[in-house]
Amino acid sequence: MPELRKDIVTGRWVIIATERSKRPDDFRPAQPVEPKKESLAFCPFCPGNESKTPPEVYAVREDGSTADQPGWQIRVVPNKFPALQPGSPPPKKVKGVYQWMEGVGVHEVIIETPDHNQELSDLPLEHLGRVIQVFRERTINIEELYHHQYVQIFKNKGREAGASLSHPHSQLIATPIVPKRIKEEIYGAERLFRNQFRECVFCRMLREERASGERLIYQNEKFAVLTPYASRFPFEMAIFPLRHSAFFRAIEDEETLFLAEALKEAVGRLKLQLADPAFNLVFHQAPNPQVSEKAWPGIDSYYHWHIEIMPILTKVAGFELGTGFYINPVPPEVAAGYLRKNEQPAS
Amino acid sequence: MPELRKDIVTGRWVIIATERSKRPDDFRPAQPVEPKKESLAFCPFCPGNESKTPPEVYAVREDGSTADQPGWQIRVVPNKFPALQPGSPPPKKVKGVYQWMEGVGVHEVIIETPDHNQELSDLPLEHLGRVIQVFRERTINIEELYHHQYVQIFKNKGREAGASLSHPHSQLIATPIVPKRIKEEIYGAERLFRNQFRECVFCRMLREERASGERLIYQNEKFAVLTPYASRFPFEMAIFPLRHSAFFRAIEDEETLFLAEALKEAVGRLKLQLADPAFNLVFHQAPNPQVSEKAWPGIDSYYHWHIEIMPILTKVAGFELGTGFYINPVPPEVAAGYLRKNEQPAS
Repeated sequence: MPELRKDIVTGRWVIIATERSKRPDDFRPAQPVEPKKESLAFCPFCPGNESKTPPEVYAVREDGSTADQPGWQIRVVPNKFPALQPGSPPPKKVKGVYQWMEGVGVHEVIIETPDHNQELSDLPLEHLGRVIQVFRERTINIEELYHHQYVQIFKNKGREAGASLSHPHSQLIATPIVPKRIKEEIYGAERLFRNQFRECVFCRMLREERASGERLIYQNEKFAVLTPYASRFPFEMAIFPLRHSAFFRAIEDEETLFLAEALKEAVGRLKLQLADPAFNLVFHQAPNPQVSEKAWPGIDSYYHWHIEIMPILTKVAGFELGTGFYINPVPPEVAAGYLRKNEQPAS
Repeated sequence: MPELRKDIVTGRWVIIATERSKRPDDFRPAQPVEPKKESLAFCPFCPGNESKTPPEVYAVREDGSTADQPGWQIRVVPNKFPALQPGSPPPKKVKGVYQWMEGVGVHEVIIETPDHNQELSDLPLEHLGRVIQVFRERTINIEELYHHQYVQIFKNKGREAGASLSHPHSQLIATPIVPKRIKEEIYGAERLFRNQFRECVFCRMLREERASGERLIYQNEKFAVLTPYASRFPFEMAIFPLRHSAFFRAIEDEETLFLAEALKEAVGRLKLQLADPAFNLVFHQAPNPQVSEKAWPGIDSYYHWHIEIMPILTKVAGFELGTGFYINPVPPEVAAGYLRKNEQPAS
C-alpha cells in the first residue's frame, strides 16, 4: 500500500510509493557517462579568462594579486545574463487587477575554485569552508547595502539541473520579495510554534530524527544530513544545523568547517551511490533581518535555516507542478539506507 | 528591465524576462523530430489489446459490443500501475511529529480514441466533446461512490511530459486530501472575494483580459483561452469557462462542445507554432461538493474551475522547485501574439 505523507512545516502531502520502490541501480545510466571534453580556453570561469565575466565584486585571492586577474581561490562576479537588474528595491505597481514591480535585484555567480574539474565533493575541507564564508559575506553585504527582502543561495550541478557551465559554481539571487516557499515555511513554523510545540518545529523534528536514525544519513558535532519524511524526490536530502538559528548569515567560522564536512558527505554519497547525478541545492534562510523584524517578529525563535538537495533522477511532470502533489518512487528510509553507505556499491 | 509579476489568486511572484525574450523558433528542435515507429501490437490501449489493461470501468462503445472487446470509442480503465490503491478514504494517522495516511484513492486512464495516431487536436469536435463528458461522468461517479476529497483530471502528452505510452490518453487521480495548489487557489479566491472584489476574482480577471485582448488567444461563446499574466512557463495557457462555475462536473452537454473547440484551438496552435512540444494539461476544479460544503461554504460564489496547459520547453530547475520562484523567458503577451496566429509560421 502506498503512503501519503504530510510535510509538517508546509502542509504539502506527497505520495510515497512504498511497494514498487526503486533502487539506486534503477537510476544509473545504462552506459557510463563519458566525461565531456571541454575546451578550457572557452570557460569564462577559468583563471586567465577573467575578462570574459563582468568585473569581480568579491574574491578570496593571494596577497598582492590584482582584481580580475589570476591568483584567486574563490571569485564572485555579477551574472552576465542576470535574471534581475541591479538597483534599489522597487515599489509595487498596479495594472488593472494585477500587481507587478520592476525586476530589480542582485544576481551573482560564486566561482568555487579555479580548478575546472574540482567538484564540490572534491574540494579540501578548508576551501569549502571558505566558500561557505563567502556565501555568508555576500548575504550580509547585499542585505545591508541593497535592502532586498531575500537572498537565495543555490547551486545547479549538471546540465539536467539547469547548469549551462560545468566549471564548479553557485549562484545568489537577491529578490525584492520573499519567495513563496520561504513564506510558507515561515508561516507553517510560526503556527506550529504557537499552537502545538512551543518550540521550533525543526528542532523538535531533528531530535526525533536523530533518535530514530531511520532517515539519518550523516551527522557531526554541528550538522545533520537526512532524507525528509515527506521527500518529494527520490534521494532528496536536507542538511540542518543542530544549533537553532534562523539566519544562515549568523553561521560562525568554526561552524563553516562542520557544514563543509556535511556537504561533502551528502554530495559525495550521492555521487558514489547514484553515478554522479545532476542536482539542485538551495539554501532556505530567514529573510533580510530588517524585513523579518517587521513582518515576522519572533522569527528568531521558530524558524531554522537549512539546505535542500534535490537530485534530478525522475521527470517532474506538470501534474506535480499543476497540483503541488508529488509522487516519489523511493521511500526516504530506503534512500537513507543506501546513502548511509560510504562505499561503492557492488554491481 | 525584467518584470516581477504576481499571480493574483495564489500570490506567487514570477520573473518575466522581458528583454532577452525568446521566440518560438528558439524552442524548435534543430532537426525535425522523426515520428517514432512503434509496434501497435504492443500498445495496451489499441483495440484488440483490451486484455492488456485491467477490466474497463466505463466505455463509450457501439450498441451490442462487449466490455473489454473492440467496438469502443472511449474507454476508461484502472491504471495498471496506480499511484494510489482503491478503497475508502483512510483516516489520518500520527507517527511521532509526523502525519500520514494509507495511499488510498482512484487512478484511472481515459483512452481518448481507438486510433493510436489521432491526437487530441485531431479528434472530431463531437468526439472530443464526448471525452469531456466522460471526464464529467467519472468525476461524478467517483465523488458519489468513494467520497474522495478531490478528483484531479490531467493529461501528459509526450515523453518529456512524463507520458510512458503515446496512444492518446488522459488520467484521473482521486485523492483523500485536497492538493496544496488547489487549496491555495481556493483560499486566495476567497480572500479576494471577501476583502477586495465582492465578486469572483476569476470573473473579474476574465472581464479585464477580454477587454484588453493583450493575452487573449481565442474565445468562443462559452470559453476563453489566454496566457496568464504571471505565467510560470513559456507559452503557458489557461482555458476558462465564461459562465461562472466552481465545479467542472456541472458542465452542460452543450458546453462540452465549446470546450472541445477551445481545447482543439489551444493545443492545435501550440502544435503549429512550436513544433508539437510535449505538454501537461491539468484541470483545477472545486473539491468534492460534500467536502467543499463543509470546508469552504460559499465556494460556489468565489471559485471558478479552469484548465492549465504547460508546454515543456525549458528545464524546470530545482531553484524553481526550491523557492517556488519561476523565471519565464517569454512574456505572456509575446506568447499570446504567436499563439493567436492560426497558420504555420514562415521559416
